[in-house]
Amino acid sequence: MRFHDQPRFPLGFKCASRNCGLKPVDKDLALFVSEREASAAAIFTRNQFPGAPVILGRDTIKGGRLRAISVNSKVSNVATGAVGVENARRMAAATATECGTTADRVLVSSTGVIGVPLPIEKIEAGLRGMTSDLTDDPLVGARGIMTTDSHPKALSLSVGPATITWIAKGSGMIEPNMATMLAYIFTDAEFDRGTLDRMLRSVAHVSFNMLSVDTDTSTSDTCVLMANGMAGRVPEAEFEAALAAGCIRMTEILARDGEGALHLLRCTVRNALNETEARQVAKSLVNSPLIKTMVHGADPNVGRILMAVGKCFDATIRTAETDAWVNGFQVVQSGARVDFDDSTVRAALATEVVDLEVSLGAGDATATAYGCDLTKGYVEENAAYYSS
Amino acid sequence: MRFHDQPRFPLGFKCASRNCGLKPVDKDLALFVSEREASAAAIFTRNQFPGAPVILGRDTIKGGRLRAISVNSKVSNVATGAVGVENARRMAAATATECGTTADRVLVSSTGVIGVPLPIEKIEAGLRGMTSDLTDDPLVGARGIMTTDSHPKALSLSVGPATITWIAKGSGMIEPNMATMLAYIFTDAEFDRGTLDRMLRSVAHVSFNMLSVDTDTSTSDTCVLMANGMAGRVPEAEFEAALAAGCIRMTEILARDGEGALHLLRCTVRNALNETEARQVAKSLVNSPLIKTMVHGADPNVGRILMAVGKCFDATIRTAETDAWVNGFQVVQSGARVDFDDSTVRAALATEVVDLEVSLGAGDATATAYGCDLTKGYVEENAAYYSS
Repeated sequence: MRFHDQPRFPLGFKCASRNCGLKPVDKDLALFVSEREASAAAIFTRNQFPGAPVILGRDTIKGGRLRAISVNSKVSNVATGAVGVENARRMAAATATECGTTADRVLVSSTGVIGVPLPIEKIEAGLRGMTSDLTDDPLVGARGIMTTDSHPKALSLSVGPATITWIAKGSGMIEPNMATMLAYIFTDAEFDRGTLDRMLRSVAHVSFNMLSVDTDTSTSDTCVLMANGMAGRVPEAEFEAALAAGCIRMTEILARDGEGALHLLRCTVRNALNETEARQVAKSLVNSPLIKTMVHGADPNVGRILMAVGKCFDATIRTAETDAWVNGFQVVQSGARVDFDDSTVRAALATEVVDLEVSLGAGDATATAYGCDLTKGYVEENAAYYSS
Repeated sequence: MRFHDQPRFPLGFKCASRNCGLKPVDKDLALFVSEREASAAAIFTRNQFPGAPVILGRDTIKGGRLRAISVNSKVSNVATGAVGVENARRMAAATATECGTTADRVLVSSTGVIGVPLPIEKIEAGLRGMTSDLTDDPLVGARGIMTTDSHPKALSLSVGPATITWIAKGSGMIEPNMATMLAYIFTDAEFDRGTLDRMLRSVAHVSFNMLSVDTDTSTSDTCVLMANGMAGRVPEAEFEAALAAGCIRMTEILARDGEGALHLLRCTVRNALNETEARQVAKSLVNSPLIKTMVHGADPNVGRILMAVGKCFDATIRTAETDAWVNGFQVVQSGARVDFDDSTVRAALATEVVDLEVSLGAGDATATAYGCDLTKGYVEENAAYYSS
């Protein structure tokens, strides 16, 4: 799969972003529109306190058709009660009016602080006339949905005559259990909603659902896939492979830009008894604060790898057959630390992308989890997120 | 329960500590001896890569009798293969010789870096003549088992004519699933090993097993209870209540001294459907990096409390009946954020002990978990633990 050097939209999709006064200066409102109504599928957070936009979105997506998505950043409209849901409805209605459609064809998202009322009048005013700003550059929309992200995130690639475009945000409170915080995927390929839904769940399983910045599952996670069909049919298998490749790449981008992160940490578990256990052990590695700080400091304290594997109490682990590698360099053999030269492992850990691989000797299942190092920057951002 | 102002030993127990050359200057070897053989019970880590001393200790404790415990810090003797187990046996044999008993009456522990060979000759040399250093001050022994702990940890209290004394270390890699990293409990009360074992498991369930500094479960966790009977019989219920009080207090001390920590964080969940779910939600709160950084920064970002409750996907939570308090001040009512004055909550979060309480409205079970804030100090210590 080769991603475009500059991300671009599929046929018929455009976006805009504005500052509507939620943030002092930066963009805080984004709009994504398809000129034709699109088939759509979406997955949402499994958090038991979902935000008002998630509550409304679950209802909206039942129709399987979308024209537009509007998103505000800074305030998440979570833990805001019945008023919150009413405000999400007003945001959808204002978006529909601006785009010449009905509110049941609009999905809205909000991201930012939990528990603060949504300034709905500012958002309604911001949406008015916003279609006149629509542009072909996905990065414009990506900029409007950022919270603590250090850069806007968009990708695209071609599948035959069709294009797939990903726009996402992540950073903190990221261990999605449905999708990353917010990820929007657009295509001009033609698929019915049932096929979109199946493909989206299948690829999220190995991409966004294997991402963890900090083990905290957001109340707003939303991942939407819209297909407006303007480029016609493309082979489903080829499309799904491209969809998976882009979701995994976007997962890596989100992991690398985790709050305060300086490294992308990829943990692959091989020879597990089954996929469930492979995923569990890979998540245990990628979430261990002691693994994350080891990567941060490029400290060859590789015994911690065995600790993080071994704390999966119920997983099948043949301890005497467990091996581990750091960026291809073997550090554990048969359950014991290899007598290696510290400086070699230190160098392997100092690269921007750190691959930890563990083989459990118990079967033939494999899984990869995506995360990042734990830094003082993470602590700094989150000790004063509400106040800043 | 009133703890002694200065911790002291039960009748017949003494300790010593030395530097045997594992650390540059600080004590790195500790010895605890009872003049009479004691009934004993122990619990160990559930990590699937237990250290050699844990492998040996599980075998030793089957005998139910102990005379001595020896402990080295700096090197944990984990992931060291068959040589590691042989070195643990040599350490037990050298301790037995010094104390005039047999190796099956000695429990050994090692704590420190994983995967480095134990310098057994230095330890054997250090143990020789160590009984001549024996003292009545539990803090002397506590000092010899420290790794990143900022102070030695010992407690004692009286139960009728008997005394119970706790000596422990913690700091990082602390989410025990049996006991805290290393905790030794001594008493001169008289109990058989079966009763000791039952009591130890029961109190660890609500104390050490509800402690988490960083979600990482050590490969060396060990908790031992020795009763030499020299003060005779005391009522079992009274003894068990005292044992629980001391274990909970020691859990709080270990949590407060978590690596880099500046606050003790106590999370109590009430009105859960059952105890399992109460414990799960309390652990989710105490382990959430976003809760931990909120406490660190005294940032009144209390929506994160609902996030950390809601990410327990399978727990029974009546979202519309969920309430939450910070140090007694209500911040969430009926699942939505209370419209409070920020400065009040900021002040509540700024105290050294922060109590978060959540009521789930689903039943009448309660549980409390113990942890600490997440700070730059934690990152700093663990990014260069091996190298420093």
